[in-house]
Amino acid sequence: MQHFSDRLTKAVRECGNPVLVGLDPRLESLPEPIRSDVDEADSGAVASAFRTFCRGVIDVVAPLVPAVKPQAAFFERWGPSGMAAMADVIQYAHQSGLLVILDGKRNDIGSTATAYARAYLGAGQASPWGADALTVSPYLGRDSLTPFVEMAIQRKAGVFVLVKTSNHGGGLFQDLVCDGRTVYDHVAQLVQKMARQTEGSSGYGAIGAVVGATYPEQLAELRQAMANAWLLVPGFGAQGAGARDVRYAFDNEGLGAVVNSSRGIIFAHSRAPYRDQYGDRNWQKAVEAATRDMIEQLRTETPAGNLAD
Amino acid sequence: MQHFSDRLTKAVRECGNPVLVGLDPRLESLPEPIRSDVDEADSGAVASAFRTFCRGVIDVVAPLVPAVKPQAAFFERWGPSGMAAMADVIQYAHQSGLLVILDGKRNDIGSTATAYARAYLGAGQASPWGADALTVSPYLGRDSLTPFVEMAIQRKAGVFVLVKTSNHGGGLFQDLVCDGRTVYDHVAQLVQKMARQTEGSSGYGAIGAVVGATYPEQLAELRQAMANAWLLVPGFGAQGAGARDVRYAFDNEGLGAVVNSSRGIIFAHSRAPYRDQYGDRNWQKAVEAATRDMIEQLRTETPAGNLAD
Repeated sequence: MQHFSDRLTKAVRECGNPVLVGLDPRLESLPEPIRSDVDEADSGAVASAFRTFCRGVIDVVAPLVPAVKPQAAFFERWGPSGMAAMADVIQYAHQSGLLVILDGKRNDIGSTATAYARAYLGAGQASPWGADALTVSPYLGRDSLTPFVEMAIQRKAGVFVLVKTSNHGGGLFQDLVCDGRTVYDHVAQLVQKMARQTEGSSGYGAIGAVVGATYPEQLAELRQAMANAWLLVPGFGAQGAGARDVRYAFDNEGLGAVVNSSRGIIFAHSRAPYRDQYGDRNWQKAVEAATRDMIEQLRTETPAGNLAD
Repeated sequence: MQHFSDRLTKAVRECGNPVLVGLDPRLESLPEPIRSDVDEADSGAVASAFRTFCRGVIDVVAPLVPAVKPQAAFFERWGPSGMAAMADVIQYAHQSGLLVILDGKRNDIGSTATAYARAYLGAGQASPWGADALTVSPYLGRDSLTPFVEMAIQRKAGVFVLVKTSNHGGGLFQDLVCDGRTVYDHVAQLVQKMARQTEGSSGYGAIGAVVGATYPEQLAELRQAMANAWLLVPGFGAQGAGARDVRYAFDNEGLGAVVNSSRGIIFAHSRAPYRDQYGDRNWQKAVEAATRDMIEQLRTETPAGNLAD
């Protein structure tokens, strides 16, 4: 198996776009044909509906985009049944040719961090959950990240460290200024070091960063500050950022960033402008239209347009 | 059901000690009678051994201590089977009369944080995992913590926010000084506000803090800074801190802190001074001896001695 960042580079180039589809299943938002018979008190039935729905999304997006991002919280919400569904969804995404970045925002100290890294990092049989990459939190410092870096090298997996998150209140601690630099900039400096230490032949490392699309100026700064790190950019679509907001996330070839949209794609059947044309019955057509529109916006407004050349 | 902090106060008073036993099952450390027949390639068999082991620990410690702290990572390490075992262990701990603080260090933004809070907060049937409390990470800011606070109020559960962690490298970002105060102190100020907002009749709030025993001076400072917050204090025993290091974590009555030991108790069968006397065969007796010794040390060296009056 190739280095994670080389696999990501290849997948983005082959698809000609950097779209990362977020798999955030919420019972109340599922299209009516899948939701209708599900009893909320039966977590097994909910988990089964999540499997059906996520497989349906994957069937549509697998020929179009390089990767999906299951959000662990929405599966954990339903207990052990939900977690079993998450494992199935990851496996199905791989069978469909997609890379899987699991959004778990895990971390802990020492051997506990190692347990998380063993749990999640490594596709196929390499780990029990089988993700290609995992999001992690930096609050516990460098020694908490090291086990993830080591496992990423060993299993050719990737790690995305939270740097500047997309939420309105993310700045409360991240924007504090210490020694003339923000906390997120201190984190970015560490990520860049780790990215350089884990560089693949693409020039990007196995260690990347999460940087929200909702702060375009900081995104541009952080692209420069972490020249060797893939950026995972959430906040597009439902959270309010558009294609122009993410244009500085890329290098000149259109590489170096994947842009996530979750609700804007997977629940397009209930959102303008797709709702009226497709609705619940044709929800997969709505997913396809929303995905194609996002691809087109990124090609028109960002260096991702250069990927297709 | 009572407010979380009142239930914790009651349990600590009734047991006469503040010991929090960490349930960190690691296959290679299990006592030989449980480990011997387990095939590492069979995650179901490992999960079954974890159930047996954790139930055996709970049987011993339930009459002695107020609470246990399962570490999610060690269960997640074995995939969906491991997670099913974690749910069982939480349920068994409750049946045995223990409070359960799940160590998951979760967090995310907005509705995703809500999904984590729904997943874990609330004993019995209130949530699918049924924990009394959950550890969470503060990096994403106040709006990421709010859904946990709201769910804690609604379900009479608790939340412990990482403030100053016990690992050697925890200071890299936590100790940065911004506006004349460390990052962890900024976090502590927020935790104290949330603790006051969620105060129970004990005077402590539903929102507490994780503060490592390995930094005794900061522990003393943080006790003062977060007067209404229960402190969850890791680092005792295997991580090097002793009873004297945690003496400033308590109020004068011996309340306000629970002190965690994981490996030092659950794997006492393979550690000095218990190994020679008990060994693998009498591992439960080793667990009991280590628990009683820790209780005695805390009673002698800290205000927890006042609990028994």
